[in-house]
Amino acid sequence: MMYKDIFDEIIKARDILKNNANITPIFDASNFGNNVYLKMENLQKTGSFKFRGAYNKINNLTDEEKKKGVIASSAGNHAQGVAKSATSQGISSLICIPAFAPIAKIEATRNYGAEVELVEGGYDDSYIRALELAKEKDLVFLHPFDDKYVIAGQGTIGLEILDQLPQVDRIVVPIGGGGLIAGIAVAVKSLRPDIEIIGVEPTTAASMKKSIELGSVTEIDSAISIADGIAVRKPGNLTFEICNSLVDRVIEVTDAEIAEAILNLLEKNKLVSEGAGAAAVAAINKLEDDKVTCAILSGGNINVNMVSRIIQKGLYKSGRLCEITTLLEDKPGELNRLLNHLKDLEVNILTINQYAEHEKNELGNLVVRLVLETKGTEQVQELYSLLGSKGYKHYKEL
Amino acid sequence: MMYKDIFDEIIKARDILKNNANITPIFDASNFGNNVYLKMENLQKTGSFKFRGAYNKINNLTDEEKKKGVIASSAGNHAQGVAKSATSQGISSLICIPAFAPIAKIEATRNYGAEVELVEGGYDDSYIRALELAKEKDLVFLHPFDDKYVIAGQGTIGLEILDQLPQVDRIVVPIGGGGLIAGIAVAVKSLRPDIEIIGVEPTTAASMKKSIELGSVTEIDSAISIADGIAVRKPGNLTFEICNSLVDRVIEVTDAEIAEAILNLLEKNKLVSEGAGAAAVAAINKLEDDKVTCAILSGGNINVNMVSRIIQKGLYKSGRLCEITTLLEDKPGELNRLLNHLKDLEVNILTINQYAEHEKNELGNLVVRLVLETKGTEQVQELYSLLGSKGYKHYKEL
Repeated sequence: MMYKDIFDEIIKARDILKNNANITPIFDASNFGNNVYLKMENLQKTGSFKFRGAYNKINNLTDEEKKKGVIASSAGNHAQGVAKSATSQGISSLICIPAFAPIAKIEATRNYGAEVELVEGGYDDSYIRALELAKEKDLVFLHPFDDKYVIAGQGTIGLEILDQLPQVDRIVVPIGGGGLIAGIAVAVKSLRPDIEIIGVEPTTAASMKKSIELGSVTEIDSAISIADGIAVRKPGNLTFEICNSLVDRVIEVTDAEIAEAILNLLEKNKLVSEGAGAAAVAAINKLEDDKVTCAILSGGNINVNMVSRIIQKGLYKSGRLCEITTLLEDKPGELNRLLNHLKDLEVNILTINQYAEHEKNELGNLVVRLVLETKGTEQVQELYSLLGSKGYKHYKEL
Repeated sequence: MMYKDIFDEIIKARDILKNNANITPIFDASNFGNNVYLKMENLQKTGSFKFRGAYNKINNLTDEEKKKGVIASSAGNHAQGVAKSATSQGISSLICIPAFAPIAKIEATRNYGAEVELVEGGYDDSYIRALELAKEKDLVFLHPFDDKYVIAGQGTIGLEILDQLPQVDRIVVPIGGGGLIAGIAVAVKSLRPDIEIIGVEPTTAASMKKSIELGSVTEIDSAISIADGIAVRKPGNLTFEICNSLVDRVIEVTDAEIAEAILNLLEKNKLVSEGAGAAAVAAINKLEDDKVTCAILSGGNINVNMVSRIIQKGLYKSGRLCEITTLLEDKPGELNRLLNHLKDLEVNILTINQYAEHEKNELGNLVVRLVLETKGTEQVQELYSLLGSKGYKHYKEL
């Protein structure tokens, strides 16, 4: 058995978490395909799996370390997981959060009992500041993923899946730094090596995939995705090593595919997922057979403003929203004529802007921009054909 | 025992639904108050409780009626409940839907196997058209709530709550036509008359409350609410009679309170609820003690465009979004000066519109409109004070 020491820690972590973390349910999600199930870590305490690893890590600190208190840097789930884990074990916590982070996440971290320091700049600046403060104030720094006890805490999810869904053939797991998939892979491959472990990364942040391809930990230049929780430029050393030996393959998903998955989860399953949480669901479309599949819905801590934006993005992608900018002759009745064409197609109008001043405008014309509620990509094509046949120019580039 | 015949039908309905409807889970929702639980009918088949009543009603049709097929009118959950219930029992269905209904709901009804006829005009026009078509095509019309078997189907929720949460002290139920609360009231009061049954209606659509106050079925002039599923102008005769004798009281909630509940469910509980579904949750704030309370989250079929709008509305109400329209002197640097004040308060800017042409504008001024992300109502007050002290005029009425 590989990584027997970590597997042993996973077994211990299960006991530590038994009365402190939720055993999250597994939901049938057949709208995503036959035999598809979701492990609902968005219903975990603090809204994500991160609570498991943070709680287990803090529980494993020495008494002296516990007395010092802990410090972490995070813009999201690790912050909340550490804050609540520390508070519930009577330990003080200080979290460095980038000043740009959503207000809701900052407030949630404070509400879980942590002291928060907002740090100007990007995530890296918060990380450096946390290391400085750890030294200065003699606090114990908690790494978000590259830590045996953190990995072991996340691994308890693997044990739960084997209990709850013993017929599972494969488990699909989002990868950020790699703590979640490393833990699950050790738990599952130790007991059931036949079960496939598939990782998922955003195309724009596939640092683990690249590292595995190149055979060593590799830092990528940038990592930006709506799945911000897993947009990580460099995997951990330990998490890389585990993934390199135990993960069967890593699939990439685009931001548009993630947005579509968030929308489907919201609309069909009535569930809220963050970008990282929906990444594994987005990858299910790329698996072609009907094997029993469990995707980890890893978290639900999405900024509600972002929910609005993702709804819009997803609706555009599926052709249920469509934007047209075209020119009208500057005389009475021309807007009516356009609107009548739209009515014939039973298209609903959400927004109209009409304006004369526009750099690309021609004299004697008005620019009109419409946002339309359409029935899908087929109807959008039908709409384009109709407008083309009636002589409208649609300037998508305006 | 009152309504023994209906209670007997509820017991039969439980058997009929056993392998056909979901026994929905009850979730802890302590973020809404101590001892608060949610009965998750948004996780019912077709996304709402309506499936129970429709399935039970169709199951109780005679063989001759089943052969004819069924017809219904609905813009929402009843449509989907009837469509799926009929299809899964091998019966054809035709649903009249108002042409203005959200495209997603129309498509969902078709996908459940129903034939759909879109009817111009309001809900009443669809209702009249369905009655006409029922006669013309010899189809069986299914009323959405004023029907013994429909009420009995919804009543199975009451039996489940008594099984799942035997310590319950009171059950809070949204009221539209009254089918859901009538069924639950008969089930619960027959077995546990000590349990309080509290109804909830939107302030703008409180037809059952008014009917109970006046002692007879009363039609109100209009019923418009974001909780469109329960915006009903007139309760049923049978549902009124049951509510008049068994419901302990009816609470009113405003659209703003419902929007806030939808937002809380989304953000804190990671759950999607429609307006009607969140109404009972919105009412929990008005109950002052810590009795064990089960609110019915009756459905999750909300148009995702509406989710966006409700998020915005809820954020404004809780002071996490704020709109300011003010005047700037028309000279370089004035916008900078305003933005610096906002930066000092760590307020995030989402939208800026600046324009010269405005009917109420004064010469030499520019109008600037800002949408800001703020931390709550306290910060909004702080912001108003600061801008006032710096001489800005904010014209909320612009």
